[in-house]
Amino acid sequence: MREFMQFRDLRVCDILDFAAANHGDTEVVSAFADGTVVRHGYLEIQERAKRAANALTDAGFARGDAIATLGWNDHRHLELYYAIPGIGGAIHTINPRVSADQIAYMIETAKDKALAFDPSLSELVSAIVARIDRPLTLIEMCSGPAQFPAAIGYENFIKDASPQFQWVSVKETDPFGICFTSGTTGNPKAVVYTHRSTVLHAMACCMAEAQAVSGRETILPVVPMFHANAWGLAHSAPMAGAKLVLPGPRLDGNSVLDLAVAEQVTFICGVPTVWQAILDVAEQQGRTLSPIKRAGMGGSAPSRLMVERLEHAGLDVFHAWGMTETNPSAGTGFLKAKHLSLKEEDQITLKLGQGRPIFGLQRKIVDDDGHDLPTDGQSAGRLMVSGNWVVGEYLNAEGSPLEEGWFDTGDIATIDEDGYMKLVDRSKDLIKSGGEWISSIEVESHAQGVPGVLHAAALAEPDPKWGERPLLVVSRQPGSRVSDTEILTVLATKLVKWQVPDKVIFRDALPMTATGKIDKRRLREELFGMIN
Amino acid sequence: MREFMQFRDLRVCDILDFAAANHGDTEVVSAFADGTVVRHGYLEIQERAKRAANALTDAGFARGDAIATLGWNDHRHLELYYAIPGIGGAIHTINPRVSADQIAYMIETAKDKALAFDPSLSELVSAIVARIDRPLTLIEMCSGPAQFPAAIGYENFIKDASPQFQWVSVKETDPFGICFTSGTTGNPKAVVYTHRSTVLHAMACCMAEAQAVSGRETILPVVPMFHANAWGLAHSAPMAGAKLVLPGPRLDGNSVLDLAVAEQVTFICGVPTVWQAILDVAEQQGRTLSPIKRAGMGGSAPSRLMVERLEHAGLDVFHAWGMTETNPSAGTGFLKAKHLSLKEEDQITLKLGQGRPIFGLQRKIVDDDGHDLPTDGQSAGRLMVSGNWVVGEYLNAEGSPLEEGWFDTGDIATIDEDGYMKLVDRSKDLIKSGGEWISSIEVESHAQGVPGVLHAAALAEPDPKWGERPLLVVSRQPGSRVSDTEILTVLATKLVKWQVPDKVIFRDALPMTATGKIDKRRLREELFGMIN
Repeated sequence: MREFMQFRDLRVCDILDFAAANHGDTEVVSAFADGTVVRHGYLEIQERAKRAANALTDAGFARGDAIATLGWNDHRHLELYYAIPGIGGAIHTINPRVSADQIAYMIETAKDKALAFDPSLSELVSAIVARIDRPLTLIEMCSGPAQFPAAIGYENFIKDASPQFQWVSVKETDPFGICFTSGTTGNPKAVVYTHRSTVLHAMACCMAEAQAVSGRETILPVVPMFHANAWGLAHSAPMAGAKLVLPGPRLDGNSVLDLAVAEQVTFICGVPTVWQAILDVAEQQGRTLSPIKRAGMGGSAPSRLMVERLEHAGLDVFHAWGMTETNPSAGTGFLKAKHLSLKEEDQITLKLGQGRPIFGLQRKIVDDDGHDLPTDGQSAGRLMVSGNWVVGEYLNAEGSPLEEGWFDTGDIATIDEDGYMKLVDRSKDLIKSGGEWISSIEVESHAQGVPGVLHAAALAEPDPKWGERPLLVVSRQPGSRVSDTEILTVLATKLVKWQVPDKVIFRDALPMTATGKIDKRRLREELFGMIN
Repeated sequence: MREFMQFRDLRVCDILDFAAANHGDTEVVSAFADGTVVRHGYLEIQERAKRAANALTDAGFARGDAIATLGWNDHRHLELYYAIPGIGGAIHTINPRVSADQIAYMIETAKDKALAFDPSLSELVSAIVARIDRPLTLIEMCSGPAQFPAAIGYENFIKDASPQFQWVSVKETDPFGICFTSGTTGNPKAVVYTHRSTVLHAMACCMAEAQAVSGRETILPVVPMFHANAWGLAHSAPMAGAKLVLPGPRLDGNSVLDLAVAEQVTFICGVPTVWQAILDVAEQQGRTLSPIKRAGMGGSAPSRLMVERLEHAGLDVFHAWGMTETNPSAGTGFLKAKHLSLKEEDQITLKLGQGRPIFGLQRKIVDDDGHDLPTDGQSAGRLMVSGNWVVGEYLNAEGSPLEEGWFDTGDIATIDEDGYMKLVDRSKDLIKSGGEWISSIEVESHAQGVPGVLHAAALAEPDPKWGERPLLVVSRQPGSRVSDTEILTVLATKLVKWQVPDKVIFRDALPMTATGKIDKRRLREELFGMIN
């Protein structure tokens, strides 16, 4: 076949080479738990990643090997993001908030041959190692000698290795990394990102319509490198030549704001609770959010109040949507030219939804029979996605998760004629009462607006007459004595009558998943004895 | 092989589908020679493109067929940009400023089966048809019935065709289009863009680091759709959901500025002479450039004065670099964060160069033996490029144009440690005198700064003692009587002594190529009897 235009496999390590060649002195700043801050240019990061690739090769690792990481956002973790795929391996990032049992299951499933971990996670690593019945090379991502038994310190590991390394010539469809879903239903499933999916995803994230990552930005990802590539920022920032500020394990509002000010950060990505903490600290201490200009948020829906506060503080907020199965970015809520003349209130309404798709990713909504529904902003259906950075098959599940080429996200959504999506609910969380749907998300968001309520979960309780009826489970804020009557009275003013829950149950705390979401599966199991 | 992440061929028509689904009402505005302006949303453009695809299919065209266009920037041309690849064909865009002989050669080489042309080019089409000895379907891109003998009018052609069409499922490495180089050396060469090269190129153009095309922009491409995809804007604008304002054949400063104001254009791309015309009109008529915010320019180097005038008028200028062989965008001169604190003068110096590469395209400079030269901003060498949107082989040339996977651009350039490139000269235009290089571009830019000089070309004249010596060929501005002594006296103050040309020859006009550059090849042939 003639190659009219050059065919070059899309490879993740090309991103680091590009940054080293064109942004060699642009900084990657890493902050650690002890308050130290270290700086490297992208050229140094490339050299260190190549040392790590040589060290991994010398230690016997090779093409096809999976290597796990348990780490925070810092430069050593970033180097392994390139060194491991650079030897033709797959980096398996693990969420340290998951139990040792689940992590051991993940390591066995991925057949990881080594584990690189942060020193702060030694206790967890002990528990993991005790559960694994085969040798596992341990690399402690520390600045000095390793403290963990039988581990080697990262700096010692790479110290004598050459900074010259020719990245292994993988095919673009070869694995780059492995990431398990958060597993709110049964065993977590393993998504295998490819070089192609990851490079295309990073290019998309750099688009002005997606995250607009550029060489004029200084970016602080609070979103973790241990799950779904920190929204792609570990790739898009070096691709764009953006300065990266990696915050390590200290993610409280005060630490993040201090670091952002010290490093003149212009753009932070984090879940809504992180933004809430930053806003609260600024308010309590009478500080401004300067120099921060842009706020990316996702993972769960932000409140209108929070978005208003951020916009009034001069930040441009965008709400992103995605999932482990989509590499993860799948959409962002940027406004179009025609929206710039809308009232602020209406602009914020648009920003509160889950946004428009990024080019390269197709979305549609379908009914229970799989027939397409109209994109009228009203019809709600199963949200299906397709594209080069959407999962094709899980590593550890039989059969295909696709329906005629489309992946069912498990969400129920509406899409309007401008492409803006709004999640109605997770399909398994929807409450079907008397043939009509009730959005658990809508009930919860109103309940969480009641003074004194900390967390609220709306569940479908089986009901002989209506099929299902909404039940509300609530935890109170410290010191609050808010009552069920008070909550239901407020809800009655916000919802139509049949959507108001029949009763409220109080708990001291609601169970949470490793990614910080309310674990409704566990609640359903406890309350109704349901699995799933 | 397992498909862990979905593999979806990158296809050009997905771009239009994306725009139709998410930006259905975003306008494509077309201005015509008679002053009429028509508007379509991207949804209508998609419907019309699908009608055209059905009409082409009904007329017997199919996968693998090449179809030529001779048109200006308007919506019919844009529709064919999608309809022709949509049936699995290749759109062969032709520069109407090329001679009928050359166009006939191009049509024969590309084996075009049809020609869609603008009514204003009927005379040229007659001359072309007379030179082609086989049937060629003729489609006249007019609003009413065709005037040209045996041609069918575009609107009649698509009128009764269905707007339902399933784009042909091509492979991503299949041809999307054909474009001939401007051919300053021998017969023009045919570059065959693939779906993959074109989609990756468009994604790159949408990056905040490249052209930052977004859904908040209204874009007026003066750069032509008849050559190298209008810098990719025919693809990147619908990909980003940007409003497109297509100016048709009226490209004088006054028409462009009027259209820009009427349509609230924020971003114009054009060669420096277009910007000069816009600035001159604004100055003569006492108008501002509002609402234009961004100025993209390329094709030849802009002058410092012009960039200063645009920046002082409030525009953000970027200088882009590319060539037919690179789809065409290969780099842009955006500043980095660290440059934002530089003095304006130094910022403009950076913007005057040919900029940094876009991710996905690699560059290097090598010496005559092919050894890498340092990126120190000083060492000048042959500029080589590689990547997914760089030519692999020409349609009509034997052998590979690549050296170990790299394409020799024919330029001599420097690259600094920040990735910024500066073109020194075309390699065949360099003058080697006494073993030292003289940049013809540098000599010419100083000569063109002498009052009274219209155009200047510096050529290498064979010299028995020095190998080569610079010779200057000059055309004067109307009414000017500037002398050789005056010109050489100025040059002596700007250049070191041995770089000053030995003599000046005057011509009434210098020969120009079809893309508006001085045709040095013809001058060399006339003056020294040299071919090339």
